[in-house]
Amino acid sequence: VVTLTFQPEDPNFEERVTSSFHRQKLMETIGAALTRVAPGEVEIEVPFSDQLTQQHGYLHAGIVTAIADSACGYASLSLSPAGEEVLTVEYKVNFLAPARGARLIARGHVIRRGRTITVCEGEVIAVGGAAEVRVAKMQATMIRSNAQGRAK
Amino acid sequence: VVTLTFQPEDPNFEERVTSSFHRQKLMETIGAALTRVAPGEVEIEVPFSDQLTQQHGYLHAGIVTAIADSACGYASLSLSPAGEEVLTVEYKVNFLAPARGARLIARGHVIRRGRTITVCEGEVIAVGGAAEVRVAKMQATMIRSNAQGRAK
Amino acid sequence: VVTLTFQPEDPNFEERVTSSFHRQKLMETIGAALTRVAPGEVEIEVPFSDQLTQQHGYLHAGIVTAIADSACGYASLSLSPAGEEVLTVEYKVNFLAPARGARLIARGHVIRRGRTITVCEGEVIAVGGAAEVRVAKMQATMIRSNAQGRAK
Amino acid sequence: VVTLTFQPEDPNFEERVTSSFHRQKLMETIGAALTRVAPGEVEIEVPFSDQLTQQHGYLHAGIVTAIADSACGYASLSLSPAGEEVLTVEYKVNFLAPARGARLIARGHVIRRGRTITVCEGEVIAVGGAAEVRVAKMQATMIRSNAQGRAK
Repeated sequence: VVTLTFQPEDPNFEERVTSSFHRQKLMETIGAALTRVAPGEVEIEVPFSDQLTQQHGYLHAGIVTAIADSACGYASLSLSPAGEEVLTVEYKVNFLAPARGARLIARGHVIRRGRTITVCEGEVIAVGGAAEVRVAKMQATMIRSNAQGRAK
Repeated sequence: VVTLTFQPEDPNFEERVTSSFHRQKLMETIGAALTRVAPGEVEIEVPFSDQLTQQHGYLHAGIVTAIADSACGYASLSLSPAGEEVLTVEYKVNFLAPARGARLIARGHVIRRGRTITVCEGEVIAVGGAAEVRVAKMQATMIRSNAQGRAK
Repeated sequence: VVTLTFQPEDPNFEERVTSSFHRQKLMETIGAALTRVAPGEVEIEVPFSDQLTQQHGYLHAGIVTAIADSACGYASLSLSPAGEEVLTVEYKVNFLAPARGARLIARGHVIRRGRTITVCEGEVIAVGGAAEVRVAKMQATMIRSNAQGRAK
Repeated sequence: VVTLTFQPEDPNFEERVTSSFHRQKLMETIGAALTRVAPGEVEIEVPFSDQLTQQHGYLHAGIVTAIADSACGYASLSLSPAGEEVLTVEYKVNFLAPARGARLIARGHVIRRGRTITVCEGEVIAVGGAAEVRVAKMQATMIRSNAQGRAK
């Protein structure tokens, strides 16, 4: 297991991530909270809600993906210079177990920091049921952008 | 370009897809509608809503993904025998343009129908802006399951 | 079905693609040939060889992937300015059928051409068996690089 | 970091993995060796060879992918019952650095073991250069099959 430690370029990274998170209205709509911001690592939680389910009553894959994507994107943003933003180029998600329980925790971390492209891993854990269960695993590619959301 | 035509195993496939779609509460929450069900092909629309946006005011990648996933899953379900369901094993999505406009249309279709695994492609188009723009492309793997959502 | 037509930036794109292909020693090692170069579209063929098989005697997924990757990368390169190169950021491949037959044909084409990132689709067809069979489908992300292979 | 330990179903798993590996003629062709087989974890090494390169003289993405795929597939096979085989449904690979150095080591391990579907992660490390460098990260989906390579 390789564990990477990153030095942020912008000392105000936490404030910048938090502020951007609060501009994502979807996160508010689904009741998500930003629960951890560290250099290259971000955690987001969402409570279970009946309004976000698929046909079997589990949280919809799109919601699981939304919080994993935001966690990975903000993990990447935590390492960018002030004044920049991050866009999602693509991601791939495997679904490992039904997304049920009291809440979901998405954790994203950077595995490769590049000048243009940052690669992240994310996972989503369901807690508050019988046991903690990993419900999804993401591998994502992010690109640095200017403040208007235009990719480098 | 290979175009595949599929023979459904269940003549009531349309009713079955429609009924399952209406059990996905997330689809109702985001205002999505099932606009086309054909053997191996499904279309879902969602109107733009400020409540579903990311930090630049575009629809969040998780919402784009949610409708593409449901379109692919139901494209697969349209070909399954009566009494079965479909689960998402995994997907990969590339984001091609910002998800803005009056509404998004997700189209999913089956590219390989197997005994256990079905492979689908999906795309999401933004309409009602300056022009129709393809905003995302999905490649997804689905698995047949029993009625309780247990994979084969 | 959206069909895109692209205008190459470099009129010598075909020569540039061909010359780069011939520097890929793996292509020579496996006997691959570049059979078509058009703006945004490239085709590569490889004959079946017992030396490239997996445990059931089919062509190994890595070989199927290698020609699909090169086809997608060169589809992207066909649209880049003179003096640039292309690197693979990532790809995802679904395997649809066993890779057997007299030869495989990989086709790659660009589905989104950006200033930095190009997104491609690829497929691999097995021919010369009972029928043409699509054995794999790729979705790939490429990045423009300078001549030394350093990403933009 | 979640570390999983698995109990193999077949006590002869190592012999079974080794025997299958030696039937993959591609592995012999590229000079790959099986260097570790544990329950749910497999390691494969390949020496650098000029015959396997892309246009910049690095190992081709297809070769990096081939050993990561075999490592993941055999990690999955190490946990299957006697008499079964494993097929690759799909994988996604991010390329993190140029594949150069004296040799590459691919490590695959299982992150979710299911009745039908097994999900694996793989990484490829380049060694023998200035430093160990992670060159690729794979997320892969495998399916159990019968001895003739027919998926469950």
